Amino acid sequence: MRAVDLIEKKRDGVELAPSEIRWLVEEYVAGRVPDYQMAAFLMAVYFRGMGEDETVALTQAMAESGERIDLSSIPGIKVDKHSTGGVGDTVTLVLVPLMAAAGLVVAKLSGRALGHTGGTIDKLEAIPGLRTELTLDEIRRQAEAIGAVVADHTADVVPADRLLYELRDVTGTVPSLPLIASSVLSKKLAGGADAIVLDVKCGDGAFMRTESDARALAETLVRVGNKLGKRFSALITAMDEPLGTMAGNALEVRQAIEVLRGEGPADLREVTLALGAELLVLAGRAPTSAAGQESLAALISSGKAWAKFRELVAAQGGDVRAIEEPDRLPKAKQVAEVRAPSSGYVIELRAHPIGVACGLLGAGREVKGQAVDPAAGVELLAKVGDEVERGQPVARLHIGRPDRFPEAEELVAGAYTIGPDRPAPRPLVLGRIGGR
Amino acid sequence: MRAVDLIEKKRDGVELAPSEIRWLVEEYVAGRVPDYQMAAFLMAVYFRGMGEDETVALTQAMAESGERIDLSSIPGIKVDKHSTGGVGDTVTLVLVPLMAAAGLVVAKLSGRALGHTGGTIDKLEAIPGLRTELTLDEIRRQAEAIGAVVADHTADVVPADRLLYELRDVTGTVPSLPLIASSVLSKKLAGGADAIVLDVKCGDGAFMRTESDARALAETLVRVGNKLGKRFSALITAMDEPLGTMAGNALEVRQAIEVLRGEGPADLREVTLALGAELLVLAGRAPTSAAGQESLAALISSGKAWAKFRELVAAQGGDVRAIEEPDRLPKAKQVAEVRAPSSGYVIELRAHPIGVACGLLGAGREVKGQAVDPAAGVELLAKVGDEVERGQPVARLHIGRPDRFPEAEELVAGAYTIGPDRPAPRPLVLGRIGGR
Repeated sequence: MRAVDLIEKKRDGVELAPSEIRWLVEEYVAGRVPDYQMAAFLMAVYFRGMGEDETVALTQAMAESGERIDLSSIPGIKVDKHSTGGVGDTVTLVLVPLMAAAGLVVAKLSGRALGHTGGTIDKLEAIPGLRTELTLDEIRRQAEAIGAVVADHTADVVPADRLLYELRDVTGTVPSLPLIASSVLSKKLAGGADAIVLDVKCGDGAFMRTESDARALAETLVRVGNKLGKRFSALITAMDEPLGTMAGNALEVRQAIEVLRGEGPADLREVTLALGAELLVLAGRAPTSAAGQESLAALISSGKAWAKFRELVAAQGGDVRAIEEPDRLPKAKQVAEVRAPSSGYVIELRAHPIGVACGLLGAGREVKGQAVDPAAGVELLAKVGDEVERGQPVARLHIGRPDRFPEAEELVAGAYTIGPDRPAPRPLVLGRIGGR
Repeated sequence: MRAVDLIEKKRDGVELAPSEIRWLVEEYVAGRVPDYQMAAFLMAVYFRGMGEDETVALTQAMAESGERIDLSSIPGIKVDKHSTGGVGDTVTLVLVPLMAAAGLVVAKLSGRALGHTGGTIDKLEAIPGLRTELTLDEIRRQAEAIGAVVADHTADVVPADRLLYELRDVTGTVPSLPLIASSVLSKKLAGGADAIVLDVKCGDGAFMRTESDARALAETLVRVGNKLGKRFSALITAMDEPLGTMAGNALEVRQAIEVLRGEGPADLREVTLALGAELLVLAGRAPTSAAGQESLAALISSGKAWAKFRELVAAQGGDVRAIEEPDRLPKAKQVAEVRAPSSGYVIELRAHPIGVACGLLGAGREVKGQAVDPAAGVELLAKVGDEVERGQPVARLHIGRPDRFPEAEELVAGAYTIGPDRPAPRPLVLGRIGGR
């Protein structure tokens, strides 16, 4: 087989055989197909798309390109969750202990902040002492012991995705449904779960800006996912304004603690319970989403979910006192407030500039490998629908990089739109694909 | 500027500014834009095409990527010719001395054999002692002294084309009109000629298989070429069967000598005179193609063209006795004949398998840098329209690589189709684009 022949086939709209796709991925990961041939192939895929069988083959070849997490010896149903990324997306920190409290097993691999979106690993590392770089054996053992583990993606799991993603990022081949789907699904396939819920975010702070794009992605993910022999369900959730009231690493840990203790913002709680209920339904532990949400609410009010989070933090070497008394979490030395320029209602609060501002303040990274400031971020004191008075603080900036503060302040101020009329409430869960 | 932004623009069908295209070419040649980004860009161009202004900008940027041949101090009109490549395409060897005999100046850069087509440089090097690797200064001085020079493409002239062509070859991005046009025209632009004729070959042995594809290429070449401030004309010529009766290096030198001496096959002579007459018309030296062809025929019958060829060979260090007595040219140790399997007329003689066979026998190379056998090749004893009897030799193979002989023999035998009826004669010059 020659890479150029496969490129030309895809270029000409001919469907590739699974064996051809497997060969291409294997040879690429082995370094025998160079980046420039893969780049041409990816651009041809951008234009020609991929059939379902091709996408399945690509996903499988990627999943098999490295180590896989084998949870088969652990009793019970193993579940997982993936979000396409948003601002203030603290869901994983709440959902993982919640699912374990419900008797399911979650071994979640997560990523770091890049671009305007945060990363669960950076958030968890805001807890002093907490380790996220676990070996596959440590992951398996902790999943078995307490039912919950969140670890950094290691280079050994799905190396094809890391290589392909880096190449797509610099060759204009990110926005391609089959390439996005294979990237998401290969990691879930290698993660060892039986049932997976996908949170496809939609709106200003999301990768998919429109509902129709988000729906197309969710449908592709569920259709291809189900062909891979796992149970999949996807929710399309709104990401016009940030989820919750915090964006930043330690700030989001505080927010997760609030929700796990039965407090915290309603929108974050609602999306988390909706996603969790999907998993309960997929796992056969709840007959309907509504029933699932009810049991999850009970696990929060009984304190079981919160207890499981403390277990998780302890198991990964984190300082449990820092979550029991969140004032011990890292705090920014400098704080500044953004005030409402006029009186009225918040009619819009765009998530994208908030995410960018958050990164500028120190919570994100501009280039790979840069250290993040655990304390930096944005606290939203007013959200869409809230009434504000001129001069009232609407956001509090936790400043880690003072030199970027003016830029961040401008972005946050510009993210708010104040108007005279209270806006109609908008739904958070916009659609559901697949499931039972 | 960032390469990824330009890739995305082209991907999305947005026209690039000349400054953007120039930046991309310059940074690529300098090694600051990597192959993988250029490969993605080229594939996006394959799908989206390029506007005329974009193609002009690309051609200019490529032409300016290295040294240029400056013939401006030489009096007279400088002409050049380009062929899209065929089998038995001996035209350059005849046309260059013929143009110089007509008082024009030709400084031609040529290439080597690759794939199923021969290369003028390999052909000329079949003449013992002849040097083709000339410096830019040597090229200029010989053009001034005798009006004719044929030299190997040096790495210094249009390095962007060499880099881009190698990349296109392995990334499935060869068949793109703007990329083909910029490759051809950038070399002509850097070559310093005022008027250029393009031989766009069409048929089994050509890059363009159909007349409509060949016409589209010729039209693009002339349109973009004229925008570059040079005079361009293109002929579409038939390449269903090989041109002439010889394919191979020394064999084609022999054939060129025959034509220059007023003998040789009619088809090679006809195409050469038609192309040469275009140049005379472009240069204002003939009112019509017919008048131009007449003057060129006179330069052959008077011996002036043949004298110029001897001058050219001598100027480049070649052994003039070897062309005066062509039996001194390299000869294959082994020769074999292919015989007609039945009696009738040759109704088809496909050029492509003859070109491949020629390469297998030793006249071409399978990988870059491989040495070619000057003596190897195929002599066609019967061409389309000829009557043959069963068992009569139709081709003679000059064998340089005996191990590949059986394969070559099969290809040559398979290239012939014998039928009961004499086929209607087909025109050689199928169309003319541009010119005066």
